[in-house]
Amino acid sequence: MDTIVLKFGGSSVADNLRLNVVANKIIDLYNEGNNVVVVVSAQGKTTDTLIKEAKELSNIPSDRELDVLLSTGEQVSMSKLAILLERLGYESISLTGWQAGIYTNDVNQNAKIESIDLTRIQEELEKRKIVIVAGFQGINKNADITTLGRGGSDTTAVAIAAALKAKHCYIFSDVDGVYTTDPNKVTVAKKLETLSYEEMLEVANEGARVLHNRCIEVGQKYHIPIITKSTFNNKPGTTIQDETNNDKIEDTRVKSIVKNDDIIYVNMKYETYSPELFNKLFKTLLSKDIIANNFINNSSHSMNIFFTIKSNVLNKFQNLLENDLKSFDTTYSNISRMAIVGHGIMNDTSILEKIFEIIEINNLEILDLQINEAKIAIMFKQKLSNNILEQMHQKLI
Amino acid sequence: MDTIVLKFGGSSVADNLRLNVVANKIIDLYNEGNNVVVVVSAQGKTTDTLIKEAKELSNIPSDRELDVLLSTGEQVSMSKLAILLERLGYESISLTGWQAGIYTNDVNQNAKIESIDLTRIQEELEKRKIVIVAGFQGINKNADITTLGRGGSDTTAVAIAAALKAKHCYIFSDVDGVYTTDPNKVTVAKKLETLSYEEMLEVANEGARVLHNRCIEVGQKYHIPIITKSTFNNKPGTTIQDETNNDKIEDTRVKSIVKNDDIIYVNMKYETYSPELFNKLFKTLLSKDIIANNFINNSSHSMNIFFTIKSNVLNKFQNLLENDLKSFDTTYSNISRMAIVGHGIMNDTSILEKIFEIIEINNLEILDLQINEAKIAIMFKQKLSNNILEQMHQKLI
Repeated sequence: MDTIVLKFGGSSVADNLRLNVVANKIIDLYNEGNNVVVVVSAQGKTTDTLIKEAKELSNIPSDRELDVLLSTGEQVSMSKLAILLERLGYESISLTGWQAGIYTNDVNQNAKIESIDLTRIQEELEKRKIVIVAGFQGINKNADITTLGRGGSDTTAVAIAAALKAKHCYIFSDVDGVYTTDPNKVTVAKKLETLSYEEMLEVANEGARVLHNRCIEVGQKYHIPIITKSTFNNKPGTTIQDETNNDKIEDTRVKSIVKNDDIIYVNMKYETYSPELFNKLFKTLLSKDIIANNFINNSSHSMNIFFTIKSNVLNKFQNLLENDLKSFDTTYSNISRMAIVGHGIMNDTSILEKIFEIIEINNLEILDLQINEAKIAIMFKQKLSNNILEQMHQKLI
Repeated sequence: MDTIVLKFGGSSVADNLRLNVVANKIIDLYNEGNNVVVVVSAQGKTTDTLIKEAKELSNIPSDRELDVLLSTGEQVSMSKLAILLERLGYESISLTGWQAGIYTNDVNQNAKIESIDLTRIQEELEKRKIVIVAGFQGINKNADITTLGRGGSDTTAVAIAAALKAKHCYIFSDVDGVYTTDPNKVTVAKKLETLSYEEMLEVANEGARVLHNRCIEVGQKYHIPIITKSTFNNKPGTTIQDETNNDKIEDTRVKSIVKNDDIIYVNMKYETYSPELFNKLFKTLLSKDIIANNFINNSSHSMNIFFTIKSNVLNKFQNLLENDLKSFDTTYSNISRMAIVGHGIMNDTSILEKIFEIIEINNLEILDLQINEAKIAIMFKQKLSNNILEQMHQKLI
């Protein structure tokens, strides 16, 4: 009998209608003869609501107490799901992080799973129960409740799958897999059947909102195939797994192209150069959680620096420009970054050639280019239209 | 340094404004130099809402999963209170039932506390932290979450106070103590300073909504003085405690008079008597959760039975009369019960004499009279006006 782990995100368990869809997916896989462990997130926007309520009581709620508060979200969704599955005639049991034996380090709000004591989960699986585990939470060695931070429930699911040596870990969400590029930008984008962990990590790093890095890394370390699928249709998803022999034949296939338009390119000038000024600039940015990347200083006597920031901090940056940083001569513009992901990409020069053809034809200016084993990433000096992405997709995939 | 336990009910922690009132009460008692353990209920109507949501998923949600779901309510209020106390500058820590070492039997939805492992609570009190414990919940020996049923949080508080050998257990609610009679019915009613556990049990049995039986019994067993007070004013409350010497001097003082008007007196007749019919009648009533008390059968050949039901099941009873029970000749009316509570009351015949004077003057008909060490309880054949209660109060207290 195979053991599988299924994870359902917040939007998949948001209301009773969706819980019924989820329950039926679980029942189908259970009836195929699998031992089933289900990991759930909190319903809908519950976590955001609880954070908001905590902030009404304190600007800086303690991380420990915030974790106690937030962990109730998954406890509610898991018990509701168990109640529903039992009504549908399937013996189920819900387990909180501590009941499921999920031990983490001490870092409240961003804990890492250190070990999983499977005793209880295995005991319940042996009774052929559907075991529902609260995602996103565990306990530290003091028996204090911890939460795992962003993407935490995905990590819970893959970590349990690893501990159980499960056959698969399904990550169900409102996204039905990984595409050759964003189907909202390029209509001919195709869903990928498989992707290696390395490739998926690169795609995730470029901001594709399918899986979180941490869960991919756990899957990679323990060789757990991760299947990303939609909760709301029956289409096949994308399997993230070790490279297979099949992959090696097509060594240098480009798997996915990601275009990111949420980047602001900034140029700041000041007539004289001083390390103190430099320091002050950085501290000012960091004090507002503005992270400057791809930093370049182009001058020695005066200051002429370039860097990028994410577009979601632009408002805060503009505020600084009108106040703390107004002595600088500053310009900025929206630019794009494109990442071409595929294992072995570095060894096939024909790919780079094709990319440069498109760059030339469209008269694009490169700001920065980085290549590694599985990715070519190019920052452009301008914002790219979706048509450029389409040309790349047509030529490379 | 004294240790005290404070318990705040659902209406006391219903919103941020009230949480602030609660926090300040706690801080005052902490600053007097006490070690403080706080037990909280779920906010406002949270428990009812969660039950309603569970019933939307299943008519008969399993007791185990319902307990997992309901226990989140206290976890939310305790962490919010800790967050608030910390913002106000007081080191606090919230503990769930299992973290606080509250072990219960296996009866989900109506568990009884079996033991309390104080290790964690004491550890935190030694650091001078305000310890906030989730009321109403514990774990059984399988590490499954259980809840304690009605009045559960009060019981948690008194049980912790007993285990800690605390000086007092404060039960804060929207009621500010126990009165000589219901102040809504008799304006001259006075608040009692003290009451013995036996007296309080009798008052609670008669339906006064101040403390639950179970918590009084625990207080009695471990000699923990229970102080019932209002969260929303600073008036002194009523202390429930062992009888003191002072009480013994006034051995036969009537402490409190409770009038209960929520009783329906039913008479059902049928031309022939048969045990089967009798049986059917009882089963029919029980199937609708209608409990018949004070049952009398007045005839041998025909059926002529009398019993009382609570007025909150009258609608269900009327439905039965129109359907399953329509072959009976049935009449019913609203009646009152009056209980006169005070330790040693049985030994002072002058009290019974005074009661009978009032009964005579007002031409009241007695249906049933019961006397024990601490209570005289009379069921009347009619509904009593508040004026009768006032006469009793004036004569007896």
